[in-house]
Amino acid sequence: MSVTAAQGFSAAGIAAGIKESGNPDLALVVNHGPRRAAAGVFTSNRVKAAPVLWSEQVLKGGAVTAVVLNSGGANACTGPKGFQDTHATAEKVAEVLEGHSAGEVAVASTGLIGILLPMDKLLPGIEQAAAALSEHGGEKAAIAIKTTDTVHKTAVAGGDGWTVGGMAKGAGMLAPGLATMLVVLTTDADVPAPQLDAALREATRTTFDRVDSDGCMSTNDTVLLLASGASGITPEQDAFAEAVRAVCDDLARQLIGDAEGASKDIRIEVINAATEDDAVEVGRSIARNNLLKCAIHGEDPNWGRVLSAIGTTQAAFEPDQLNVAINDVWVCKNGGVGEDRDLVDMRYREVRITADLAAGTESAVIWANDLTADYVHENSAYSS
Amino acid sequence: MSVTAAQGFSAAGIAAGIKESGNPDLALVVNHGPRRAAAGVFTSNRVKAAPVLWSEQVLKGGAVTAVVLNSGGANACTGPKGFQDTHATAEKVAEVLEGHSAGEVAVASTGLIGILLPMDKLLPGIEQAAAALSEHGGEKAAIAIKTTDTVHKTAVAGGDGWTVGGMAKGAGMLAPGLATMLVVLTTDADVPAPQLDAALREATRTTFDRVDSDGCMSTNDTVLLLASGASGITPEQDAFAEAVRAVCDDLARQLIGDAEGASKDIRIEVINAATEDDAVEVGRSIARNNLLKCAIHGEDPNWGRVLSAIGTTQAAFEPDQLNVAINDVWVCKNGGVGEDRDLVDMRYREVRITADLAAGTESAVIWANDLTADYVHENSAYSS
Repeated sequence: MSVTAAQGFSAAGIAAGIKESGNPDLALVVNHGPRRAAAGVFTSNRVKAAPVLWSEQVLKGGAVTAVVLNSGGANACTGPKGFQDTHATAEKVAEVLEGHSAGEVAVASTGLIGILLPMDKLLPGIEQAAAALSEHGGEKAAIAIKTTDTVHKTAVAGGDGWTVGGMAKGAGMLAPGLATMLVVLTTDADVPAPQLDAALREATRTTFDRVDSDGCMSTNDTVLLLASGASGITPEQDAFAEAVRAVCDDLARQLIGDAEGASKDIRIEVINAATEDDAVEVGRSIARNNLLKCAIHGEDPNWGRVLSAIGTTQAAFEPDQLNVAINDVWVCKNGGVGEDRDLVDMRYREVRITADLAAGTESAVIWANDLTADYVHENSAYSS
Repeated sequence: MSVTAAQGFSAAGIAAGIKESGNPDLALVVNHGPRRAAAGVFTSNRVKAAPVLWSEQVLKGGAVTAVVLNSGGANACTGPKGFQDTHATAEKVAEVLEGHSAGEVAVASTGLIGILLPMDKLLPGIEQAAAALSEHGGEKAAIAIKTTDTVHKTAVAGGDGWTVGGMAKGAGMLAPGLATMLVVLTTDADVPAPQLDAALREATRTTFDRVDSDGCMSTNDTVLLLASGASGITPEQDAFAEAVRAVCDDLARQLIGDAEGASKDIRIEVINAATEDDAVEVGRSIARNNLLKCAIHGEDPNWGRVLSAIGTTQAAFEPDQLNVAINDVWVCKNGGVGEDRDLVDMRYREVRITADLAAGTESAVIWANDLTADYVHENSAYSS
């Protein structure tokens, strides 16, 4: 499954020795065509890692032959040498695949910021990965891009005779403008780059962009969609876009479910907003409220903290018309005390917060996590 | 000291029984004149507690005779009944002080959101507080407004023959647009309301507004400045404003030093910004980065997280010109690796982060705290 669920792709995941642990740390995904169309979405952080700067250029051409991904180092804030290393990585992939250009090789990296990659291990690793390429290699590739992920993440959707598959990594630093994550989606549908781009942008806008585990935006976020055309089928754009969205949604949900140190997945739905932007702004404000995140961790249906968070936004609402439900119990009505908070059962991992702005008909869903001592522990260890 | 350091004021702090613990929970500060000028600054949260809505109206008159403050309940999100309770509280103060109008009585509350105050305890408590009023009552008043504060907070400044004194409470939910806190400042300087207002707004803009313990903005923030004129002295406005700023700065620093669960006070100075707004935006983004806050807790000089946070802002800078120092060691130079991170000594409570945007000459300082398991614990307990 994963990136090799669709026809026309091979993949590999190997241990190149980038990680001191000896765990798999290098993945390669190759598009064997006949089409090599691609689209990409990258972090909106203005401090971008070298592989992001590189891959943004590659994607402008609309064609990608291969994607090489490493864990064990983000190659971010590494200056000109870091960019040269990314370039050398792409050149090496082009060389081992023969007959391809480095300008069609996308690169993605994840790990600690501010350290150079061990190129003496990475470059030989590319040869090793190329030798291991397999049309069943999707799972191994998904495993090789893990950092603090406890599980690897894959998803598949599609239609009659065509498939969209994907893999993702990411377990912290999940935030808007893309979670920290590397995602590669592949399809054997015969879809040109502009349509891939449209489908991918719309899909990420309402999936990865609405995952906000801890409000921290990465320097390395990358989502790529590669089309081989190997099925010979060109689906209706709507059906194709929906399949891409479904895979993104599935992977985004898996990212939240595996967020560092989290004990709760919080589904925040903002309803009856004047605009979708209002709904997203309010949802994000709730998602990022540390006091609320602590309360959810403590299974405390503390709706006052939801109202506090809503009150910091510019969205259209009247304070005395706000309603809030936690796990479907309307604990806040008309800005004041509603149903008995003791009716709220918060024992399960998923917690649903519904915020009714009573100002229109638009809505949005944002996914977040609780804030736990384990999160603090995982992220306060030296150079985690 | 505290609010009775200046001449012309009396204060009291008593236990009215609002807190189940039996700890002091009601404070009264009275201005005996001859002048009763006042200024106030309130939360910019759009969900405002009843006492904030009331006191905003009172302050429009520019005159305040008394301030009554309770801990043990925020009287926020309590609907029309909550507002009636605040009104009744002010009326009771006016009644016991005799000859005064409720329209000159400011009210402030702090505690849990979404519960009505026990008026059967609060109203008799006002009689008790009035009977206990003393020109040495400042400390007791400061103690009575504590919630999760571990210490009470007071400060004093002034000039030749005149004084500015103050008290503050606040230990969490500290954020811009005012930290959650109640602050009462008093002065015996003879200063009319418009000049009080100018001094107070300028002082809060660069002190309380730049404290960002946990990014959460309260519904109840209130800062009041009362002038009795009892010294008969009208200082130069600049000297007066500086004294007000000094007291605010001292109290703001005490708030950070007593923040819930914190083990570090983080002084974030953004230098060489194109504008002061840029410096504040960047400082706040750093202050609110949970991953960085965890790293600081772990005494990890993780400058990559500083760059990640800077990169999410709209401020003017070039990524390859950013410099970052932690405790004066320039661990990041020109957007990449700088001095040896092992040179950074982070054993002490105060940690200094300097972010050089290399884009101008403006600067700003934001104070924040680290993120700890204790913070999570304190804020995840049921209805903390």
